Amino acid sequence: MPDRPLTRSERLTRRLLAELAQASADPPGVTREAYGAREQGAHDRVRREGEALGALARVDAAGNLYLTLPGHERGLPALVIGSHLDSVPHGGNYDGAAGVLAGLAVLSDLAEARFVPRRDLVVMAIRAEEAAWFPLSYPGSEAALGRLPPAALEARRSDTGRTLGQHMLEAGFDPEPIRRGVPQIPAGAIAAFVEVHIEQGPRLLAKGCPVGLVTAIAGGVRHVDAACFGAYGHSGAEPRFARRDAVLGFTDLVRGLEAEWDALEAEGSEATITIGRVESDPTQHGGSRVLGELRFTLDLRSEHQAVLDRLRASLRRICAEVATRRGVRFELGPAFTWAPARMAPGLVDRLEAAAVRAGLPAPRLPSGAGHDAAAFAGADVPSAMVFVRNRNGSHNPDESMDAADLDAAVRLLVQFVTTFDET
Amino acid sequence: MPDRPLTRSERLTRRLLAELAQASADPPGVTREAYGAREQGAHDRVRREGEALGALARVDAAGNLYLTLPGHERGLPALVIGSHLDSVPHGGNYDGAAGVLAGLAVLSDLAEARFVPRRDLVVMAIRAEEAAWFPLSYPGSEAALGRLPPAALEARRSDTGRTLGQHMLEAGFDPEPIRRGVPQIPAGAIAAFVEVHIEQGPRLLAKGCPVGLVTAIAGGVRHVDAACFGAYGHSGAEPRFARRDAVLGFTDLVRGLEAEWDALEAEGSEATITIGRVESDPTQHGGSRVLGELRFTLDLRSEHQAVLDRLRASLRRICAEVATRRGVRFELGPAFTWAPARMAPGLVDRLEAAAVRAGLPAPRLPSGAGHDAAAFAGADVPSAMVFVRNRNGSHNPDESMDAADLDAAVRLLVQFVTTFDET
Repeated sequence: MPDRPLTRSERLTRRLLAELAQASADPPGVTREAYGAREQGAHDRVRREGEALGALARVDAAGNLYLTLPGHERGLPALVIGSHLDSVPHGGNYDGAAGVLAGLAVLSDLAEARFVPRRDLVVMAIRAEEAAWFPLSYPGSEAALGRLPPAALEARRSDTGRTLGQHMLEAGFDPEPIRRGVPQIPAGAIAAFVEVHIEQGPRLLAKGCPVGLVTAIAGGVRHVDAACFGAYGHSGAEPRFARRDAVLGFTDLVRGLEAEWDALEAEGSEATITIGRVESDPTQHGGSRVLGELRFTLDLRSEHQAVLDRLRASLRRICAEVATRRGVRFELGPAFTWAPARMAPGLVDRLEAAAVRAGLPAPRLPSGAGHDAAAFAGADVPSAMVFVRNRNGSHNPDESMDAADLDAAVRLLVQFVTTFDET
Repeated sequence: MPDRPLTRSERLTRRLLAELAQASADPPGVTREAYGAREQGAHDRVRREGEALGALARVDAAGNLYLTLPGHERGLPALVIGSHLDSVPHGGNYDGAAGVLAGLAVLSDLAEARFVPRRDLVVMAIRAEEAAWFPLSYPGSEAALGRLPPAALEARRSDTGRTLGQHMLEAGFDPEPIRRGVPQIPAGAIAAFVEVHIEQGPRLLAKGCPVGLVTAIAGGVRHVDAACFGAYGHSGAEPRFARRDAVLGFTDLVRGLEAEWDALEAEGSEATITIGRVESDPTQHGGSRVLGELRFTLDLRSEHQAVLDRLRASLRRICAEVATRRGVRFELGPAFTWAPARMAPGLVDRLEAAAVRAGLPAPRLPSGAGHDAAAFAGADVPSAMVFVRNRNGSHNPDESMDAADLDAAVRLLVQFVTTFDET
């Protein structure tokens, strides 16, 4: 912490973080449900602050918020700084929101310096990034870009069971142009999309750096409701030869996938394999029963589509082998997929130069988790991400970002924005 | 099915099976909770039928029911035919009850034949055999024999949270003599204890035999609330080196135990290892999280105490190894144990001879599940079991015994009882 009073923008981010935490408290942690009252409350608050800083506010048909500081040459493609304002249920206060507040802080610093950029600077607050609500990849960003598949509007929110289209309507937005693929911010109108986001792992902590630059965002495949089916039986009474044990089938699957992960790493490829839920049936399970059913989620990730394709093929092979060996059957259920995205190398270089000017070490690192920036990269918008150091991971009440680290990201962004058209 | 009208005892067992199913219906299946209203209802019904058949009824301090057909020489140790009347929650109608009804059917056949045995014949309806209610091994039988550890009276019923002692009092019984270890039926007063019970596995089905003779009852160790603790993390964001994954820890434990099982079988030893429940925390789990906690049950069984001792040692070793390798921690929680029991060889021979006289093939087979007969064997009462063929295992609504197979067990028992003092 510098030995000086906080700047106006530093006070702003601290105040807004506290206000958001209070307004979306849902112990333990915070909940800002996509297209729900607490996400909307965060949008309203960010809009008021942006307008107070002199930005022009616009809300698109999907409910995304754009706060624009007009440039001298308004016809030029804009710089967009954005992230999302929703959170997972009982999540932390920083995942998503910190990035939007960083954008507001940049607006504040530029306003204070009476700096007028050459091109428009847009701070974007994006809807519905967390797949905990809709089993979709970045629907807010995709809708903004006119790229949301129409079928996605029929996806149902996990808690309400109502569709994304219904939720848009209920929240006062208009799914029809989204359905027709009308861009709400055309990709061609964006010179660069930069997302600030807390790191959800410990790499920056381990390196002792407040910020880092993302090189690539992993893609993934997720089976949210997979199951291994065997046959229930009395543990003591059923002979081993007759056993069709869902636990042993599941265990073999995990083992096979981990062997595949080891093989990929030995070849120098990167992947991540996670079982995020394991549940036997409470109406059936008990101490003395061989389990006939075990349900689980399976999450496969990689920066490389080829690795994802190989993992999916391995998954099918392993399931078939285990089914034969154990007398079980796997039903993996629908797969929810998202594509890997490489950050634009030239843009990452610019951000690195900005970090140097701001006096910040900014190591490059991958993002295993998905982010809105992947949607922009998928639309061929030059896109990049600044990660902010954070403790205890994310998607939990204990996520912990030091506001001073967010300040560092803001200084980096101010350098980036103010020199974008000089370099 | 013989081409003849049903006998009186055959009609009796069919009627009582139907009445019990109706009186204890709790869809799916039946529930007769230990020391609860539906177990008591079954005791009342069996008592009325036994008294109608001329038997003398007695209820002991623990609520066990004895229906005695007096012999010529009442001072001689009695023949006792017994099983339990409680069921697991939403279980089947046959586990336990079929054996008590077989005893009533023997009383009926002897009464019809006006046969007076040399020694007393006692049909015993035992309390609280199913460990689903109290985490105890055969508390009804142990109480009857004056062998229930006083601490067992403090064990709490899984649904009510009240102790066994409280439940005895509430049901009108008297835990005090049980606490003091006063036998309600002295072991020395029993010449033989024979339990009829449905088989809970498919061996008799596979052999095509209606009845079988048990050679040994497995003992076991059960951890009803074991857990593997790791650290929650974002699947994509947390690097593999930092992962402390409860699922991978659990998987390694299962794998290690199965290797131990293989090794035991390769040496010709018999054991059974079962994970009967696996659950991640619904307030914490989700598609994108590395799990920090997985709870499970672990059930280890063998006919041989030495094998159980070895398995427990292996379990400790495997947990320690996995904890180090995966950065996880196991808490196995309290162990609920029950001792293996060998059936009395001379008594099994007598039952086999009775089967031959009844024209029944009666293969010998082990019992992987625990039964009251193990408690009697543990008190040095010559004990044996007759298994009745049954489909779909037990402890579930689908258990399925053909009443004609129970008739076969009754014919075997009638041969056994009427010739016991001749051979």
